Amino acid sequence: MAETPLLLRAMRGEAADRRPLWIMRQAGRYLPEYRELRQTYSFRELSRSPELAARVTLQPLARYPFDAAIVFADIMSPLPALGVDFHFDPGPVVARPVRDRGAVDALRDPDPEELAPEVMEAIRTVRAELPSRVAVLGFCGAPWTLAAYLVQGRGGKDFPVLRAFAAAEESELQRLLGKLTDAMAVYLIRQAEAGADAVQVFDSWAGLLSLSRWNRLIRPHLETLLERVGRAGVPRILFVQNAPHLLDEYARLPADVISVDWRVDLAGAQARYPGRAVQGNLDPAVLLAGPKTVRKAAERLLGRVAPSGHIVNLGHGILPGTPLESVDALVEAVWEERPQ
Amino acid sequence: MAETPLLLRAMRGEAADRRPLWIMRQAGRYLPEYRELRQTYSFRELSRSPELAARVTLQPLARYPFDAAIVFADIMSPLPALGVDFHFDPGPVVARPVRDRGAVDALRDPDPEELAPEVMEAIRTVRAELPSRVAVLGFCGAPWTLAAYLVQGRGGKDFPVLRAFAAAEESELQRLLGKLTDAMAVYLIRQAEAGADAVQVFDSWAGLLSLSRWNRLIRPHLETLLERVGRAGVPRILFVQNAPHLLDEYARLPADVISVDWRVDLAGAQARYPGRAVQGNLDPAVLLAGPKTVRKAAERLLGRVAPSGHIVNLGHGILPGTPLESVDALVEAVWEERPQ
Repeated sequence: MAETPLLLRAMRGEAADRRPLWIMRQAGRYLPEYRELRQTYSFRELSRSPELAARVTLQPLARYPFDAAIVFADIMSPLPALGVDFHFDPGPVVARPVRDRGAVDALRDPDPEELAPEVMEAIRTVRAELPSRVAVLGFCGAPWTLAAYLVQGRGGKDFPVLRAFAAAEESELQRLLGKLTDAMAVYLIRQAEAGADAVQVFDSWAGLLSLSRWNRLIRPHLETLLERVGRAGVPRILFVQNAPHLLDEYARLPADVISVDWRVDLAGAQARYPGRAVQGNLDPAVLLAGPKTVRKAAERLLGRVAPSGHIVNLGHGILPGTPLESVDALVEAVWEERPQ
Repeated sequence: MAETPLLLRAMRGEAADRRPLWIMRQAGRYLPEYRELRQTYSFRELSRSPELAARVTLQPLARYPFDAAIVFADIMSPLPALGVDFHFDPGPVVARPVRDRGAVDALRDPDPEELAPEVMEAIRTVRAELPSRVAVLGFCGAPWTLAAYLVQGRGGKDFPVLRAFAAAEESELQRLLGKLTDAMAVYLIRQAEAGADAVQVFDSWAGLLSLSRWNRLIRPHLETLLERVGRAGVPRILFVQNAPHLLDEYARLPADVISVDWRVDLAGAQARYPGRAVQGNLDPAVLLAGPKTVRKAAERLLGRVAPSGHIVNLGHGILPGTPLESVDALVEAVWEERPQ
């Protein structure tokens, strides 16, 4: 009989024997088996092949008893369906940055079938391979975070071209965010239909704006996206990074879980938003320091954050040079904890 | 007769005909006359020669009626006196990063005479050249921000090695911060003795830590630095960047002015800390969008932030590609404003 994944039970705040654990970027460069595959295939080849993407998604699960598998893809993966052309170097580089009305107009209303079909197939494979107690997660970039890459053209320090565009061409930015919102709502719902138990929305660059600018430019789109996905019955995790001044607003958005980086006091957030599930938030840099330091930091986190409704994770993606022993130490700390 | 610089009057909250204005990195790459000098001299040559540093410091003052000149130097400039070896590529790259007890031990207690004598001489020249109504500013990096470069070895995304060091080697980090605090206190006081009317402490990377970690690791050193400089009678501006969750704490530190980036609502900060002078905080990216957008944003800022105790500035350094017309628009907005 199918077992409800521990992660979903935590999302609902149900009591459990222990806290669920997974790690952002758990399939990736810190794993020797991933680095080996990368000898043969580029990042893009891995993410574009449903077989390889499924294989990479499953790699960390073979090594660690994580409670979720997140499909191996890039936040840019669905954008070719909108007519966006990009390559990786090593992050996404957009061929024609979107910086005027014409470029916004040129973005296609995507055919749902074309929204990263390889991701859908990878999710189906992974869901079939894994026991029901392990949650399969889909994801997308939040509209603003996708717009950051589309307007700036590539990742980088503080996205100044994006901020200039937001100041000078607000109505074009709004149209761009609207198009991305529509596409991402469909994309997330389709991932759930393909077998994802829940989805995570990554808003990595929201903190570039002040609260009042965020309220005006970002909030309406993010709210729409989360509402649509929620109406389709899909459980939602909302990740926000480097935006501690926006935490109150993110906590009020219609998501089931708020996932925060290490700058935020997670126990404080739990106290402030009772009944809301939280995810995080060990500093991924702490794992670079080795298992002893990880153990101490993990125990401090578990000691401060109440177990009910807490999904253990890092505050951001695991770093490439992380020793495997550090991940072991985190897994042990979570598994050895006895519920209070 | 010597005229008290408008900037100092604003720091004391005194009434004036208009708000003072200067721009972080006002001497630099957006100026054609600076780029021309850089054809002949490297950044390091410019900053190491007192004559050239003074010349570069004065360049923006010849073009714009700014109310302050900030000495052209790098936050790393005083560190050779501690035995730190570095080069620029294009930001500072430390030859031997400080990552263990031995490296912290090896940092010398500097001879005050050796703390960037070229900066002292440049300040003397600039003070002699400029009318008394223009303030001359000295500066230094905050202990944590200097430690960020020393431990990580170079600038970069989120300083993971620094964060790992802070987690694993807290007592060594504390010793490092203590040494930097002692050196920077002497360095700032000597800049004031050389003719600086006020000093600015740049804490650009404080926001990498949570509030509780900041309180434990950073606050004591920053407090000591500011107190020592204050006891010497030197007016202090404290700049904090990308750390909106730490604003309350920075506002309570012993500085005369709190300078914040564009993520912060400056009018809100003014209301929350009445009587405290504030500096900032136009988004430097807005200047990329041209004079019309700058004019609008500047007028919005001036309309929201009360003039008393407000030093107009950007929220971070001016960006290299900024059109000169954008700076003109900012100057005009400030000069044309009539006091309420």
